[in-house]
Amino acid sequence: MANPTFADFKKLTAHAKDYGFVFQSSEIYDGLAAAYDYGPLGVLLKNNLKEYWWRSMVQLHENIVGLDASIFMHPKTWKASGHVDAFNDPLVDNKDSKKRFRADVLIEEQLDKIEGKMTKEIEKAAKRFGEAFDEAQFRATNPNVLRYAAEHETISKRLATAMTNGDMQELHQLIVDLGISDPDTGSKNWTEVRQFNLMFSTQLGNVAGEEGKLYLRPETAQGIFVNFLNVQKSTRQKLPFGIAQIGKAFRNEIVARQFIFRMREFEQMEMQFFIQPGTQQEWYAYWKETRMKWHLALGHPAEKLRFHDHDNLAHYADAAVDIQFDFPFGFKELEGIHSRTDFDLGAHQELSGKKMTYFDPERNESYVPYVLETSIGADRLFLATLSYALREEMVPGQDDPTNVRDVLALHPALAPIKVAILPLKRTEERIVKIAKDIFNDLRFRFDVQYDDTGSIGKLYRRQDAIGTPFCVTVDYDSIDDGTVTIRDRDTLQQERIKISELAAFIGPKVDMANLLAAAAR
Amino acid sequence: MANPTFADFKKLTAHAKDYGFVFQSSEIYDGLAAAYDYGPLGVLLKNNLKEYWWRSMVQLHENIVGLDASIFMHPKTWKASGHVDAFNDPLVDNKDSKKRFRADVLIEEQLDKIEGKMTKEIEKAAKRFGEAFDEAQFRATNPNVLRYAAEHETISKRLATAMTNGDMQELHQLIVDLGISDPDTGSKNWTEVRQFNLMFSTQLGNVAGEEGKLYLRPETAQGIFVNFLNVQKSTRQKLPFGIAQIGKAFRNEIVARQFIFRMREFEQMEMQFFIQPGTQQEWYAYWKETRMKWHLALGHPAEKLRFHDHDNLAHYADAAVDIQFDFPFGFKELEGIHSRTDFDLGAHQELSGKKMTYFDPERNESYVPYVLETSIGADRLFLATLSYALREEMVPGQDDPTNVRDVLALHPALAPIKVAILPLKRTEERIVKIAKDIFNDLRFRFDVQYDDTGSIGKLYRRQDAIGTPFCVTVDYDSIDDGTVTIRDRDTLQQERIKISELAAFIGPKVDMANLLAAAAR
Repeated sequence: MANPTFADFKKLTAHAKDYGFVFQSSEIYDGLAAAYDYGPLGVLLKNNLKEYWWRSMVQLHENIVGLDASIFMHPKTWKASGHVDAFNDPLVDNKDSKKRFRADVLIEEQLDKIEGKMTKEIEKAAKRFGEAFDEAQFRATNPNVLRYAAEHETISKRLATAMTNGDMQELHQLIVDLGISDPDTGSKNWTEVRQFNLMFSTQLGNVAGEEGKLYLRPETAQGIFVNFLNVQKSTRQKLPFGIAQIGKAFRNEIVARQFIFRMREFEQMEMQFFIQPGTQQEWYAYWKETRMKWHLALGHPAEKLRFHDHDNLAHYADAAVDIQFDFPFGFKELEGIHSRTDFDLGAHQELSGKKMTYFDPERNESYVPYVLETSIGADRLFLATLSYALREEMVPGQDDPTNVRDVLALHPALAPIKVAILPLKRTEERIVKIAKDIFNDLRFRFDVQYDDTGSIGKLYRRQDAIGTPFCVTVDYDSIDDGTVTIRDRDTLQQERIKISELAAFIGPKVDMANLLAAAAR
Repeated sequence: MANPTFADFKKLTAHAKDYGFVFQSSEIYDGLAAAYDYGPLGVLLKNNLKEYWWRSMVQLHENIVGLDASIFMHPKTWKASGHVDAFNDPLVDNKDSKKRFRADVLIEEQLDKIEGKMTKEIEKAAKRFGEAFDEAQFRATNPNVLRYAAEHETISKRLATAMTNGDMQELHQLIVDLGISDPDTGSKNWTEVRQFNLMFSTQLGNVAGEEGKLYLRPETAQGIFVNFLNVQKSTRQKLPFGIAQIGKAFRNEIVARQFIFRMREFEQMEMQFFIQPGTQQEWYAYWKETRMKWHLALGHPAEKLRFHDHDNLAHYADAAVDIQFDFPFGFKELEGIHSRTDFDLGAHQELSGKKMTYFDPERNESYVPYVLETSIGADRLFLATLSYALREEMVPGQDDPTNVRDVLALHPALAPIKVAILPLKRTEERIVKIAKDIFNDLRFRFDVQYDDTGSIGKLYRRQDAIGTPFCVTVDYDSIDDGTVTIRDRDTLQQERIKISELAAFIGPKVDMANLLAAAAR
């Protein structure tokens, strides 16, 4: 389809609320910041996305099995994984406004300002010189631009060094040196900068003190690692094999925003693939390709997806790439693919004293396997899907350019509602009887809606807006010949079809197996 | 089937671990008490159970829609619901052993002891008198029994009154009066008894102090209530209508036990049905019947299920009943059905200042709806299913009484693996090719396992033990005539069937629609 996606992010969030996809959490209490609830249609769409991921991982891979570990884990898990010691953000409070900020973000905002000034100088000059303007030369000679560039470089370097070394004093000094003030109040009265751990913690009631301290898992991956041997033994898998898991994780972000893109509570779909050491480059390439194909099969166009290599590798990784999606606010991480080496299993082996080795009959030796991870945010996938599929477009096949519709062009297998049953006249008992019978038959197989609350034109628009691929209209002819009209969401083509053939007509088109086959090709 | 279920609960938990249904959480760190992880087969079974509940609620009811609210909610939610003020257990510490106990449980254990003594007296007398023994008369006259009964009554009354009044001093006095000691150390050195709130709490990083305090939801119901108006408006539902939700909840139990029956982190499947005030008795009866039918359709035999009316109604309820299941440790709550009146919506309306009313076009008036709740623990349903379905039985149709098998007699729609593909000879390439082709075809539709790791007899036993309804064996004849043997888990009947007809043969038998139709009948 040639029509543009919604430029206006606000329109997307309003659509999501109005039609029951996503509500702000606890809205009656003026909301809980950065928390959202999935409404009646949202939960259906999200479940379909999760099912697509799950089936393509677990059902289609002979050597990938599932897991559902609990959110609470033994606290030593997070010691071994490095989260207790190194999962921090630098935090600073303004003493006057009592507001809390990330020190690095405050400094980055200053860098953005300097860049803004530089851009302004360049734009001004470009306007003045017209076609004769040579940007490279101007950058290399203009004293103002040179000053800004030097300033930017100095600050960037100090920030990077301070972050790498965890030097909180230097971050504080940077804030002072740059004269950064609270954006609302202008106050420069800052506390010291301190490390703030991003794990939410809570306390067991039956154990007093530090020993009873529990964390909400900040990632689902560790639930897989600590279960590695239990899973391997009970399923008798041989390397290479994977463990897949869908579940909630929690991060105590100081700044969380962009709708459901960054929430403090979110859902991950992670798969850890256990491999022979030395084969990680090969599997890294394999999973990069496999995961990109999966996204493309979903209907996301190629130009909305790209790979983005990590500039700085995390302490556990020897290679890492993101699959980025072109969200309404730009290209951002949707999925991560990481070569985690034996870092996690090795760390758990060391701290627990339990062997995390696998005996390889081919090599006739035992070793700690390497791990290749694919990790995707279910909420981000939901947002990507919605932001790609939601379109305002001229109604196909109509001349009137003012005749526009909102349509959610989801893959039929993902659509929350597969079929809407619409009686042409709700006061005609014979029509209603037929429509209800169809509804009662089809709902054992599909998510179906019965709607008689408006004119057919209005009902079609509503079903378009929620992504329903098929509308079935029951009319007077249905009484006589047992046929109905079935309308296609995308083409608007209408076909006359026997009621007895409806299920067989719709079934294959909305079947998740199609999507799985496309991704497996 | 006439064979008994496993008497030994330990055998069930061992089976659950060995075959990858349920593992202890963080086992390599010696476990986290009362937390469990679902393994590769467990997660498939649990997902099937959740899907059965979800589809029978949301897909089959025109007037029930779904929701997935976040675990974090605005803290005022829990003030309105009463959880901040009244969701407590009385806690007492032993100063010597540093162990923590529920005061009421300590006292109840004393009551059990007294009952035990009474039973012993009666049994002794019954043995002595033989057939002439009249228990009622003995109870009414024997001085020891009378003394125990009086003591039991006095303590029961004091306990009940103290609990009703939240009288912590009286609970402490009871512990002193009864001379209760720490079971491990014998110490009677107790702290005062204090109220302990069962909600886990945590702290937002971006807001300091009490204002940043968050709770992990202790039930999923409130996520439905606060979203009542958003859902009603976006779906344009009219009363009566319901909102269904599956999700995790958390309770900081002092004593948690019995495998996955009582965990601190658990999963609920709740449906809140909004109705006209005055119709609650009618809907209470309707949902009691509907939910019992649902359990029976699942395959749970009638004698394992019973209704149990609540002795004491919670502050929000005007009628309440449990559906109890006969677990290996006796009849216990599996599901609750509660008439919650307008307590919750009314409380949220009062605290939020937002109207929680529905305009009823029939009555031409606005009111706060009443609520009828059905609430079931997904983990308890899992345990009930496993404990009913797991059987040790003589192999059907064989004379040898020593030939026994473990079989998991799950409804085929619930089975984690629907079909196992077993090549008779793994060194015969032509057999392997056919078996792999069948596997690669069927796995787009079903959860399928390929297994060539043992003799066919051994592989059959393994599939029985994990509940696989069908095994397909590929042999030499398959090469010649394109047929395979399909074996039924329950009857052990084997049929010869064309490979091309396999999917059509298996499909309808494992289809969740059958189960849904049975429950809807």
